[in-house]
Amino acid sequence: MSIDLTESSITAAVQKTFDGSKNARTKEVFTSLVQHLHDFTREVRLTGDEWFTAMDFLVRVGKISSDTRQEYVLLSDILGISVLVDLINHEDSKGSSVTDSTLLGPFYVEGRPAANNGDDISGGVDGIPMFFTSRVVDTHGNPIAGAHVDTWHSDGKGFYDVQQAEKLHNHLAMRALLTTDEDGRFWYRSIAPRYYPVPTDGPCGEILRAADRSPMRPEHIHFWFQAEGYDSLITMLFRADDPYLTSDAVFGAKRALVADFIEHEAGEAAPDGTAVDEPFQTVEWTFVLNPASTAE
Amino acid sequence: MSIDLTESSITAAVQKTFDGSKNARTKEVFTSLVQHLHDFTREVRLTGDEWFTAMDFLVRVGKISSDTRQEYVLLSDILGISVLVDLINHEDSKGSSVTDSTLLGPFYVEGRPAANNGDDISGGVDGIPMFFTSRVVDTHGNPIAGAHVDTWHSDGKGFYDVQQAEKLHNHLAMRALLTTDEDGRFWYRSIAPRYYPVPTDGPCGEILRAADRSPMRPEHIHFWFQAEGYDSLITMLFRADDPYLTSDAVFGAKRALVADFIEHEAGEAAPDGTAVDEPFQTVEWTFVLNPASTAE
Repeated sequence: MSIDLTESSITAAVQKTFDGSKNARTKEVFTSLVQHLHDFTREVRLTGDEWFTAMDFLVRVGKISSDTRQEYVLLSDILGISVLVDLINHEDSKGSSVTDSTLLGPFYVEGRPAANNGDDISGGVDGIPMFFTSRVVDTHGNPIAGAHVDTWHSDGKGFYDVQQAEKLHNHLAMRALLTTDEDGRFWYRSIAPRYYPVPTDGPCGEILRAADRSPMRPEHIHFWFQAEGYDSLITMLFRADDPYLTSDAVFGAKRALVADFIEHEAGEAAPDGTAVDEPFQTVEWTFVLNPASTAE
Repeated sequence: MSIDLTESSITAAVQKTFDGSKNARTKEVFTSLVQHLHDFTREVRLTGDEWFTAMDFLVRVGKISSDTRQEYVLLSDILGISVLVDLINHEDSKGSSVTDSTLLGPFYVEGRPAANNGDDISGGVDGIPMFFTSRVVDTHGNPIAGAHVDTWHSDGKGFYDVQQAEKLHNHLAMRALLTTDEDGRFWYRSIAPRYYPVPTDGPCGEILRAADRSPMRPEHIHFWFQAEGYDSLITMLFRADDPYLTSDAVFGAKRALVADFIEHEAGEAAPDGTAVDEPFQTVEWTFVLNPASTAE
């Protein structure tokens, strides 16, 4: 009977409507969601005006979202939910040699170009040359061949390709899908990324400004590994001397993911041995994947 | 310091970023919101796949929303949040003679046509004639003149104008803004509404189907009163003999808002004294408004 509900009886009444869920997980998730959303609403005594503001805000987050602008992901990121989900789902690899995971972030784009090892994936965007050299191995140090490696990063001013779509004529840049060779190796040339503010020109920016929060993320390179027989790994590498390393706006930085971004003078040799006639950077890293969970 | 956060340390770290909020309410609301969203996420051990599903779902709720399709309001409604917000904010009128409030619902539309008392507001939609006669008074029974009264309702098949925009050529119907006369009276002619399912062709329908929940709402007429010196009142009147009265899909039905929808034979007199040559209905109700809260 859901009539004449009160502030205290409504929660159970709503939860009861999920009793007939076709699978147990639907019931579990919504029963908990209703409890916590109701508890929040009661705790802050949400006003009608605040509810209208919330409705309008949530619609606008949806409206501005697209394949290349993931504002809901960003909202989840700035509220720490994305990292929390990652932490919950990677408890088992704590203390092991497996590379730490972290949040996906709002700039992953499906349909990124495939590239060969050694390719320049900068898409012609100007910047300091960066050579990334890496190896993907299992927990025994054995190479994982044929792993798919998504990588994406900002330019030297802190902007991703999708944030400058007009200038780049909608051309995707500074992102690629690579494949590891027989030794588990992958390598590419690009340009050095930079710390940057998360996009503040949309609804999420309103929250950051209202809270007078820093929008800055430390400099990083994104990776998403997928290999048969292994858990997929979404992670980032951070630059050791970054000023925002301990104040990441989306809570994703980890010391275990801090890499040396080594600066080289003009004329020094790139990893492939050829001389580079301008200053450049190199980064090297070994990623360790977890054997596929039986639960997945 | 937000680096190397754990499942247990992340919540406080995120909450701390709201410490610098420009107003205390922002800090209060977001501190509580983060706590409860994180508690939910931890409690159900939300998986990465479920998080992706949620991101996609929330975007789609926003994308389908428009001035005439309030899918986020509907989501709030089917999770009982809309009614909870209403209950929280109308504790003070419990036990008084003030008319009970209830949720707004997703079908209120700004820019509805103004009408004069006595007008037919059906917009030409076919149905059983309904004559609504009412008075708006204060808690001492004194008339409130010049009150603005929004009213809106479905047709006899349970559909609102905005759900049949193509058929109605985007013409708004079965809704109007009226004004009470010197005796606090307002009255209009329209067509009888009907119980109906909330829209299930959008994302909210996916939740209802997954939970095998009834989408049905009991028959009702919506009202929104705004008068200077009084709290605004958002409410509905329900039909006494409705089969869905005690199982409202959005939890809004109240016995105190149940009215007699009286059926009349062809040839009987309408409230204005003229004979009606077909069967019709009459509904009469007195609404009592609360003096304006000083807090507002």
